[in-house]
Amino acid sequence: MAGSKFAYVRNFELPDPLLPGAFMILRLDGHAFHRLSSEHDFTKPNDERALQLMDHAARGVMNEFKDIVLAFGESDEYSFLFRKLSNVYNRRQAKILTTVTSMFTSSYVYHWPQYLPDTPLKYPPSFDGRIVLYPSAKEVRDYFAWRQADTHINNLYNTTFWALVLQGGETTTQAHETLKGTVSKDKHEMLFSRFSINYNLLPARYRKGSILIREPIPPAAQAHSESAIVSPDVSTAEVQAASTPALKPEKKARVKTTVILAHCDIIGDEFWASREYLLAD
Amino acid sequence: MAGSKFAYVRNFELPDPLLPGAFMILRLDGHAFHRLSSEHDFTKPNDERALQLMDHAARGVMNEFKDIVLAFGESDEYSFLFRKLSNVYNRRQAKILTTVTSMFTSSYVYHWPQYLPDTPLKYPPSFDGRIVLYPSAKEVRDYFAWRQADTHINNLYNTTFWALVLQGGETTTQAHETLKGTVSKDKHEMLFSRFSINYNLLPARYRKGSILIREPIPPAAQAHSESAIVSPDVSTAEVQAASTPALKPEKKARVKTTVILAHCDIIGDEFWASREYLLAD
Amino acid sequence: MAGSKFAYVRNFELPDPLLPGAFMILRLDGHAFHRLSSEHDFTKPNDERALQLMDHAARGVMNEFKDIVLAFGESDEYSFLFRKLSNVYNRRQAKILTTVTSMFTSSYVYHWPQYLPDTPLKYPPSFDGRIVLYPSAKEVRDYFAWRQADTHINNLYNTTFWALVLQGGETTTQAHETLKGTVSKDKHEMLFSRFSINYNLLPARYRKGSILIREPIPPAAQAHSESAIVSPDVSTAEVQAASTPALKPEKKARVKTTVILAHCDIIGDEFWASREYLLAD
Amino acid sequence: MAGSKFAYVRNFELPDPLLPGAFMILRLDGHAFHRLSSEHDFTKPNDERALQLMDHAARGVMNEFKDIVLAFGESDEYSFLFRKLSNVYNRRQAKILTTVTSMFTSSYVYHWPQYLPDTPLKYPPSFDGRIVLYPSAKEVRDYFAWRQADTHINNLYNTTFWALVLQGGETTTQAHETLKGTVSKDKHEMLFSRFSINYNLLPARYRKGSILIREPIPPAAQAHSESAIVSPDVSTAEVQAASTPALKPEKKARVKTTVILAHCDIIGDEFWASREYLLAD
Repeated sequence: MAGSKFAYVRNFELPDPLLPGAFMILRLDGHAFHRLSSEHDFTKPNDERALQLMDHAARGVMNEFKDIVLAFGESDEYSFLFRKLSNVYNRRQAKILTTVTSMFTSSYVYHWPQYLPDTPLKYPPSFDGRIVLYPSAKEVRDYFAWRQADTHINNLYNTTFWALVLQGGETTTQAHETLKGTVSKDKHEMLFSRFSINYNLLPARYRKGSILIREPIPPAAQAHSESAIVSPDVSTAEVQAASTPALKPEKKARVKTTVILAHCDIIGDEFWASREYLLAD
Repeated sequence: MAGSKFAYVRNFELPDPLLPGAFMILRLDGHAFHRLSSEHDFTKPNDERALQLMDHAARGVMNEFKDIVLAFGESDEYSFLFRKLSNVYNRRQAKILTTVTSMFTSSYVYHWPQYLPDTPLKYPPSFDGRIVLYPSAKEVRDYFAWRQADTHINNLYNTTFWALVLQGGETTTQAHETLKGTVSKDKHEMLFSRFSINYNLLPARYRKGSILIREPIPPAAQAHSESAIVSPDVSTAEVQAASTPALKPEKKARVKTTVILAHCDIIGDEFWASREYLLAD
Repeated sequence: MAGSKFAYVRNFELPDPLLPGAFMILRLDGHAFHRLSSEHDFTKPNDERALQLMDHAARGVMNEFKDIVLAFGESDEYSFLFRKLSNVYNRRQAKILTTVTSMFTSSYVYHWPQYLPDTPLKYPPSFDGRIVLYPSAKEVRDYFAWRQADTHINNLYNTTFWALVLQGGETTTQAHETLKGTVSKDKHEMLFSRFSINYNLLPARYRKGSILIREPIPPAAQAHSESAIVSPDVSTAEVQAASTPALKPEKKARVKTTVILAHCDIIGDEFWASREYLLAD
Repeated sequence: MAGSKFAYVRNFELPDPLLPGAFMILRLDGHAFHRLSSEHDFTKPNDERALQLMDHAARGVMNEFKDIVLAFGESDEYSFLFRKLSNVYNRRQAKILTTVTSMFTSSYVYHWPQYLPDTPLKYPPSFDGRIVLYPSAKEVRDYFAWRQADTHINNLYNTTFWALVLQGGETTTQAHETLKGTVSKDKHEMLFSRFSINYNLLPARYRKGSILIREPIPPAAQAHSESAIVSPDVSTAEVQAASTPALKPEKKARVKTTVILAHCDIIGDEFWASREYLLAD
């Protein structure tokens, strides 16, 4: 074959398998989203449409990768947890990492007009990604707690900051100055006393982030097909329209799963105790 | 800080620097493009619009990454060569790999309507990617020769195959059968004798693939600003509208560069001899 | 400094940290020990002196690396388990791997005359090594079960093989032929009926391999200083002469530890149930 | 087989191939040699016997690994260069790294009595090692220049330091103080004026380090068998007693090689210009 004398260059492609038996978490971050949000006039401190678009893109990834059992999104980032024993693409790092990143990006651009119909996308946005391995369930829980705590801290800050600017008439410089050295309690009080905002009544989406959970559809529910599956501790949940086959494609009867969106607490025990399968083998 | 007791999970993010001094080639491949081309009725054996869209997306990547000095595209794949001493993102593998993959994908989706205005995109397409390191210039040349030889082989086969099907009235099964065991010369003759097609007169884009070359703009040309820079061996070239600053951002005066599209031979010596800077330090 | 213009070559030394929170097992294997055992007339099927030398070298490694909590040896190989949260050498792979391999080798050569006083070492023997990461305790237990099952299989085969040769007068070719297709039970019977050997009464060292266990010295025992610490399920145990400080060098009072040699079962639950600290955080 | 239910643990052994086509340099460093030299009364500033032992151990490694074409030693470290296209052990990193480290260590301990017959080794010494990849010949040259420049700097300092202490009667603290802020020229003068030592007349071994070079034996020389091969720029050379087969084991007639010890300059061009094969493909 004509190409054969050059084909030796393939020998430079080295294997990159991820350690078996460890949990994979893949995190995506928006690239230069400060500019993106500013050029497209995202609402401050949160733009619900843009957040819903992120959730939609994440759900698209989960529809393709049945081994992703949980995802968490806030602002311009999203984290995906693969089930512990996933053997997707034989655990080849670059293959998994790039395919997920590409699918998410593609979905984000594709569905933009659906969520921001009056705001044409001015240029193609992008994301970067990484995979981090965690040996144990405890670390996985702490990872998600870390991201949700971050959501809380950022959102409380941003909410107060933009109240000072948009309602309080401060410049952004003044607002940063006003907030310097304040702790959580100070910001809660500032919001309440000066702007009559009860932080705890703000939408859970902003305070808790978005949690996408793959849940098995009980056989009964499957019979009724599209009925809603909402576990009681899920404060806000939307049911995915199309249920999807998944999780264990081996001979045994496939368990049908659906992907639920929630904005609930994932730092405490309750979330995990009622979903032990998320961290199981 | 609230998040600090969980922040230890960051310690699981391990460094992934690529070996300095080696050439990086990043190759993207379309994910399930057989289905994409079929669902969107791509012209057989080549859809010029879809190929131009690939070129556009690749050019977008090169506009962002000034350290990419050369790219080669065929069908649903694109390869990018970074200059040898590139220190982009401190050579962090996942960062480089995902950012490029994401930008390319985003651009592909974003610009689709411009190239296939009558064919709405039915769902978000995606790409996977990998980075391969090559220690020496010889291997880099052989890498690109490998891809261009592959383009030739595939295109000759596909051109003959679709002539048999579309003009010769064969089924796809029959056409595969007809071509079994044939060599290059047989296909050339078959094309010429049965379908009056002189393979060598077909568009260079199909036969040679797309080559995107970063070229320095000579100071004189810079003065005249947008004038075309076409080196004599470039059979087909389009000049990038906006020239871009680049390549060596250090104190010395930046050399302005432009990205040229060509469909020329890159297997022989001529291409490389006239562009030694591509493989230089 | 004179060397500074060349010092850039250090930038090619890339980091190689091992994933935190995963168990490290480092396994050493003798290099060309078939030749070594033959040139030094090792007793067949087991040479107790050579095995004791291996144990001595392994103990030397454990005296230097307090984070090694367990080791298993058979024939010309030894496996070392580091405690889960070990941060030895900041978990740099090459540093850990080469230092342990080198210490073991050095100790083996250094102590040879003590174990084989009448057999001068004819040339310097060597070992190779590797580190394997295991995310969970279960896999670590299965690793050691794998090695001990291997010990059993090899030893039963070798014992029968050499009985056939040395006592049965068969050639080595004949002995291999005799054993072809036999299962465990057949070999046990062959040993008993033809050679009056009750396999289960052979030394535990040969049947079970060597287990080196780091055990805490209870404060009481520490007071009495050198008294023997033997847990009841340890069939054969030798107490290390000098007790060694260890395990958690942080502020809290150091727990003194000692390294025990045993030749007991490590496949069943009992061994692990009575030593939960081996696999703890 | 009994072990088969546990054999899955082998799946955690991940591949670790080194990039093809890049030069491998493996560097060994003595572990805690400050203590070793002090406990065994090594002569200051250089102990010729200990250095010769290092050279012997390095030569032993080169006798086993025919793909090592050059080695450089100083003090308690040794660097080994593999020929560019070496495929030893399929370029598996841990295998190469540990085998070389182990062989060197073993040889060092084994041959100790031959070089320090009146100084029994008190305990087993050890080394650590690492492999660094270099894409090009220039970097390899600079690597060796870096080590030899380091030798020069250290030896000039140490020579002056110990002259001040042993001949000048200074304490070690005073000697460090005396040398603070001095440059090369100052030390040369101090040695000459105060101690009548012409630095440049000191043994080349101390000033230049030890260079082990694999050289082809010309067919003529092979006929005469053991005759000395000394190239003119090698200031001090000892010919290896036994010549060794090597370098290109493929079908072509094997070139016999011998390993030469020299203490010459390897920073300038001459050394490399007369031995182009060292850095060739």
